[in-house]
Amino acid sequence: MLKKLGDCKAAEVYPVDLPPSFDAFKRRLEGKRLDAGDYKRLVGDIVAGLYDEAQIAAFLVSQLHHRLSDEELGYLIRAMVDTGEIVSFGEPVYDEHSIGGVPGNSKVALIVVPIVASKGLLIPKTSSRAITSPAGTADTMEVLARVTFSAEEIHDMALRARGLIVWGGALNLAPADDVFVRVERRIGVDPPTQMVASILAKKLAMSVSRLVIDIPVGRGAKVENEKDAAMLASMFLSQASRLGVTMRVALTFGNEPIGLSVGPALEAREALETLMKGDGPLGLVEKACSLAGLVLELGGVAPRGRGYSLACEILRSGMAYKKFREIIEVQEGDPDVKPEDIRLAPKRFTLEARRDGIVSSIDNVAISLAAKAAGAPDDKTAGIKLHVKTGYRVKKGDPLLTIYASSDARLHEAVRIIEEYNAVVVEGVIVKLFP
Amino acid sequence: MLKKLGDCKAAEVYPVDLPPSFDAFKRRLEGKRLDAGDYKRLVGDIVAGLYDEAQIAAFLVSQLHHRLSDEELGYLIRAMVDTGEIVSFGEPVYDEHSIGGVPGNSKVALIVVPIVASKGLLIPKTSSRAITSPAGTADTMEVLARVTFSAEEIHDMALRARGLIVWGGALNLAPADDVFVRVERRIGVDPPTQMVASILAKKLAMSVSRLVIDIPVGRGAKVENEKDAAMLASMFLSQASRLGVTMRVALTFGNEPIGLSVGPALEAREALETLMKGDGPLGLVEKACSLAGLVLELGGVAPRGRGYSLACEILRSGMAYKKFREIIEVQEGDPDVKPEDIRLAPKRFTLEARRDGIVSSIDNVAISLAAKAAGAPDDKTAGIKLHVKTGYRVKKGDPLLTIYASSDARLHEAVRIIEEYNAVVVEGVIVKLFP
Repeated sequence: MLKKLGDCKAAEVYPVDLPPSFDAFKRRLEGKRLDAGDYKRLVGDIVAGLYDEAQIAAFLVSQLHHRLSDEELGYLIRAMVDTGEIVSFGEPVYDEHSIGGVPGNSKVALIVVPIVASKGLLIPKTSSRAITSPAGTADTMEVLARVTFSAEEIHDMALRARGLIVWGGALNLAPADDVFVRVERRIGVDPPTQMVASILAKKLAMSVSRLVIDIPVGRGAKVENEKDAAMLASMFLSQASRLGVTMRVALTFGNEPIGLSVGPALEAREALETLMKGDGPLGLVEKACSLAGLVLELGGVAPRGRGYSLACEILRSGMAYKKFREIIEVQEGDPDVKPEDIRLAPKRFTLEARRDGIVSSIDNVAISLAAKAAGAPDDKTAGIKLHVKTGYRVKKGDPLLTIYASSDARLHEAVRIIEEYNAVVVEGVIVKLFP
Repeated sequence: MLKKLGDCKAAEVYPVDLPPSFDAFKRRLEGKRLDAGDYKRLVGDIVAGLYDEAQIAAFLVSQLHHRLSDEELGYLIRAMVDTGEIVSFGEPVYDEHSIGGVPGNSKVALIVVPIVASKGLLIPKTSSRAITSPAGTADTMEVLARVTFSAEEIHDMALRARGLIVWGGALNLAPADDVFVRVERRIGVDPPTQMVASILAKKLAMSVSRLVIDIPVGRGAKVENEKDAAMLASMFLSQASRLGVTMRVALTFGNEPIGLSVGPALEAREALETLMKGDGPLGLVEKACSLAGLVLELGGVAPRGRGYSLACEILRSGMAYKKFREIIEVQEGDPDVKPEDIRLAPKRFTLEARRDGIVSSIDNVAISLAAKAAGAPDDKTAGIKLHVKTGYRVKKGDPLLTIYASSDARLHEAVRIIEEYNAVVVEGVIVKLFP
């Protein structure tokens, strides 16, 4: 290990097993700028296992103190891509990716991908499992089909179905990212520069060249205000132009959960119902069609500003559901699966309104924590079903949400969190009463 | 007129026609404390017409710079009451009064009064015509019945029907108030102390001893934040204890119009529909039942905390409608009147949603201004009907509101205001898009 005596360089003692890139590593910690070669060596050594977790944590934290320049971020992304496999398709590849952080968001891609693919655009979406949330898109898709495939399988399946929703972690795409994610979970830190690098490295490894990024903004979301969101958006965009990716970034309403379900099985049900009916909770349909519409515009399938209505039309017409069946089938699931076939955890608790009034807020953080306490995402059948959204008027006794868990202990813990956080606030017309 | 030369008292020159109370008036303008006798003389001279409008304006504005003490406010109220008639009933008199300022609020009393009266409590509500709003309770009630009666008539009618909704301005109750209101309109200033004095003087003149005060709080309402509302509430309460009135003050949700209608005829229709069905727009029903419930609690008809559900029950059961018919009849209206009998202005314009999304705000100020531009309250048939409230999800093309006016010119002016203010904001899921 490094033993530094004072500030005198001559007195520094290095252990014998130093990685070759250690000098670059040290300069990064001091906030010095590294070049493309530095990042290439550094990432190579990280993937080779030459850095331990403490060192990787230091590298991550350094990004908070000395933000990577645009150039450095570009070098880091390139280095992450170059250490892994690249899947090439010989045609433009599209994708839509949300930075997440809002409960209920994992199902959106299950609606976006078939809408886009049904117009012939190639959208082989690799998604993550939940990092800190109750459900990642891969967890939710796995309720309906297999999500773990090799790069070759993904290549062939994508060309057959035009759309996929698979787990990126099973592939050797940008393998440095797996290391970074593991350490990020341990230290609870996710520097914005590293988030941008992780997302774009995985997309480049899939040869994505037309990308829509979704940044949910709201209380209890990853990004809580528009200013931070705009900064993140500009980081994405400057890398996109550097890397030759055509990109649009949408800041989306993230003050409350998306749709009415949180947790893999519940979200899979809701996505399937929405695709089958061609309609569903307005917030969910609107979000999916907005994002799908932007991808359709990138693909020239719809003129600018008209993608949304085309996406809605594709959803309504049943074309999206037809495509989703093909995707399930190519991913070795049962295309005839019905929403009611999806098993939900047997222990249930329904929270009721204690008064007449208007739902004034639903707490993202409380819903996420409670869904995880109930068992999601490891227990796919666990989660939370919302019966109301912000702005709904309720009568005393009306159901607000139902928690699903596989054991009483988990159910009780989830209920405790919901009550402690006052997860669903119902306000009456009388705000305060004197005396 | 007063001509003051420098600061030297000896040099002041008074005109010969000075009111006897002029010395008290001058001390008030300097922020000095006046006593009960001072206010008695001052208010007496004002009612006698010895003060001109400039002087009354100065008195009103002085309340903003040198706020009346609790004692002074009590003296002012007492003086205002003593210069007018007092209607006595020989039994406890109840009332509910809103400080107003939120469009659509005038109809609430049309539901509160019959609920309360149907339990036998005496509630002879005197209300005002619109001061700055598109409808006062008296304007709205006048669509259904006569509202102008003498004090003797009101006394006898109230004892027969147990409830009334009449115009207070027709009576010689606290006549100083009429003078103050006239000048307030001219200078656009309504000092909180004077508002409290005006309301309580009129209530005392009707011998009200159990009173519920409603202070709507919200953007574009008279009171925009809870802190100001709490200060106003404490002014009401300290006067109530000084004057022997049992009072509860409710701060109520006032961020958007109440119910779905604004303007006398539209509001009379909505109140009548709600009473006939025993149900209506949730926000309206909730507000009316909350306030009626508080009055029922003051009357000992419901235990504390149970007034709301009793009021809802009275409304639902049809008892409130039955009582409202009696009230209409005693006020010489047609008790068989149906909502559809109430004539609405013939020129109409419906504003439609320009996009899918969620209604994120409805601007009180814009709705008030547009309803007045359309002709309300002088043209009782003019106004605005809302098709949505905050939190509603809408599709592109869905109707948001309809303006009613009697001429194209008025209709166009109202439309212009609605558009200029962006009165109903619909937000999509995408908050911002880059690039």
